[in-house]
Amino acid sequence: MTVYLASDHAGFDMKAAIKAYLIEKGTHIEDIGPDNKTSVDYPDYGAALAVSMKEDNSAFGIAICGSGIGISIAVNRYPWMRAALVSDMTGARLCREHNDANVLALGERLVGIQIALDCVDAFLATPFERGRHQRRVTKLSRPDALLL
Amino acid sequence: MTVYLASDHAGFDMKAAIKAYLIEKGTHIEDIGPDNKTSVDYPDYGAALAVSMKEDNSAFGIAICGSGIGISIAVNRYPWMRAALVSDMTGARLCREHNDANVLALGERLVGIQIALDCVDAFLATPFERGRHQRRVTKLSRPDALLL
Repeated sequence: MTVYLASDHAGFDMKAAIKAYLIEKGTHIEDIGPDNKTSVDYPDYGAALAVSMKEDNSAFGIAICGSGIGISIAVNRYPWMRAALVSDMTGARLCREHNDANVLALGERLVGIQIALDCVDAFLATPFERGRHQRRVTKLSRPDALLL
Repeated sequence: MTVYLASDHAGFDMKAAIKAYLIEKGTHIEDIGPDNKTSVDYPDYGAALAVSMKEDNSAFGIAICGSGIGISIAVNRYPWMRAALVSDMTGARLCREHNDANVLALGERLVGIQIALDCVDAFLATPFERGRHQRRVTKLSRPDALLL
């Protein structure tokens, strides 16, 4: 299981901290970038994360920007991605249980690093509950079919 | 300016409270549904919100489910929608300033009603900053162009 990491410049430091944390735990990670804090556009890194995860159904992603809002919108443009923007462990657990989220989105300027690391642990440890939630998650993969 | 409201069953009570609050303030609202608490699928109401807002560039939306996660993913499937899942007024302000968010997403089970109403006020009162943010927001409307 690979965890792909992506951010923009405003999420770079949190990405680096989570990267170090996951490597220390022995988790296999791939850093999609950026590799420095030069200003970039979050939609570019959201798209790069989506490309990286498209062929790997078992992969997880972590996506970070200043608020987490921009990159979560960007990632969710792609129907095989389910990015959950969370601010605490409850959200990080629920997004796995109910939404089968494959991307955890975080805002470096809004959430402290200890809460972020706890969110990462909860996200990676929690299984999807399936059941009544499966039908809803399946609908997320076919958005055009829902337009009247 | 119309504010469109959508939820699932788990967001129904918060939708009703926000609806009453906005009507009291004289805001023009359209309630996309549901109109009762029977279990429904959040992707259906996210899509219905997207359909309602597609032809109305000046409209805003408010989308609610239990955590806000499912319906925020659902709404962001559509390139003309920018749904920000927030848990406080800071996020509600930043999503307008930086992301030109046109949908505020809230989790009824995670955020109390007073915080939610304050988020609604901040969201509706805050203008988009444009500038360097415009290029990023424009990229959100053309997600396929970003795939390598």
